[in-house]
Amino acid sequence: MKIHDWYNGPYPARVRIALAEKSLLSRIEFVSVNLWTGEHKQAEFLRLNYSGTLPLLELQDGTLIAECTAITQYLDSLDDNPTLTGRTPVEKGLIHMMTKRAEIEFLDAVSVYFHHATPGLGPEVELYQNAEWGLRMRDKAVRGMHYFDNVLRDQPYVAGEHFSMADIAVLGGMIFAALVELPVPDECVALKAWHARVQERPSVQQWRAMVAQGDAQRR
Amino acid sequence: MKIHDWYNGPYPARVRIALAEKSLLSRIEFVSVNLWTGEHKQAEFLRLNYSGTLPLLELQDGTLIAECTAITQYLDSLDDNPTLTGRTPVEKGLIHMMTKRAEIEFLDAVSVYFHHATPGLGPEVELYQNAEWGLRMRDKAVRGMHYFDNVLRDQPYVAGEHFSMADIAVLGGMIFAALVELPVPDECVALKAWHARVQERPSVQQWRAMVAQGDAQRR
Repeated sequence: MKIHDWYNGPYPARVRIALAEKSLLSRIEFVSVNLWTGEHKQAEFLRLNYSGTLPLLELQDGTLIAECTAITQYLDSLDDNPTLTGRTPVEKGLIHMMTKRAEIEFLDAVSVYFHHATPGLGPEVELYQNAEWGLRMRDKAVRGMHYFDNVLRDQPYVAGEHFSMADIAVLGGMIFAALVELPVPDECVALKAWHARVQERPSVQQWRAMVAQGDAQRR
Repeated sequence: MKIHDWYNGPYPARVRIALAEKSLLSRIEFVSVNLWTGEHKQAEFLRLNYSGTLPLLELQDGTLIAECTAITQYLDSLDDNPTLTGRTPVEKGLIHMMTKRAEIEFLDAVSVYFHHATPGLGPEVELYQNAEWGLRMRDKAVRGMHYFDNVLRDQPYVAGEHFSMADIAVLGGMIFAALVELPVPDECVALKAWHARVQERPSVQQWRAMVAQGDAQRR
């Protein structure tokens, strides 16, 4: 399998962590798509993924699967042990709900802030910006941090008792927030404690090592 | 099970059609949340669904599942016949991808257009509007129609050979586009042909009957 992505992107992180959780990293060939030159918005890549987003999974037979949730759903279905997307109907429903909520209320909001109210990927890639909308999404993301903080005061993980795809989505939000220097409010103690706890997972450590390796190669 | 929704909303339509596809309508008690008075943005409802969106599924034990994809994933997992969300890993991946793409590129874009660049639900509900962003999303939705038209030139359904959750999501886009009088371009012949074909499904006819009944009750 190939993953088209960029080594330190927040959305790519979601799939790389999922791959590590499923012990599938060794089966992946990574293909670099340079976000900073806007390669993901050029015709060649848009033919593979209409939405122009990373990451993108390419199977041996050429089948293309975009969107983190869809890729994670695919990867988690390969064995009979769906640790990331849920076993029972209720688990599946709650994990998909919290994953989507992590996107809408946090990760995607940080992304819109980055692309619209900061220089983003630079003037050659950010051809249209709506700063007012971007700042609004920044405020939404901060409210989202408070929401997830509240969730994590009552339960150990984002979708309940177990680590899941929903935790990885919130982690994507934390990774993007750190990149754009949007701080987590001090009072979000449960969110910060959860974040410290998930850093100890081997999957997150493997992701960090891949980022460090990518940084070193580009130095 | 209870569904909190509004009888003719485009997102509620997605779950009502899914319920009809799964022959589950008789097990549902519908609870009206009036979009036009902004009931979905008031504290009482926000306690049930932080994102303030419809529909919302409430199980017998009080478990709450929001987000159409999550609710559909739950409903489709209740029997051992996941007709809407896919049987194999590849089917699951492609259906989730195309469902998300239908949201991003079409349905959600029409929704943002409605709420930001038209009077939307009226001045008492639409407390903030960004018309420039709304118009941009309208144009994105029209491009989305062309994209799905292209997809449907090559295959009978949105995610491949079979009707799925992804078709229901595009149908949600068509329903919303009709409500806001955003026409499907004439040249989108494959999209129009698919739309005519899915109208014949019993699930879509049941949904239409429910809308007609709701209209009659409100007259």
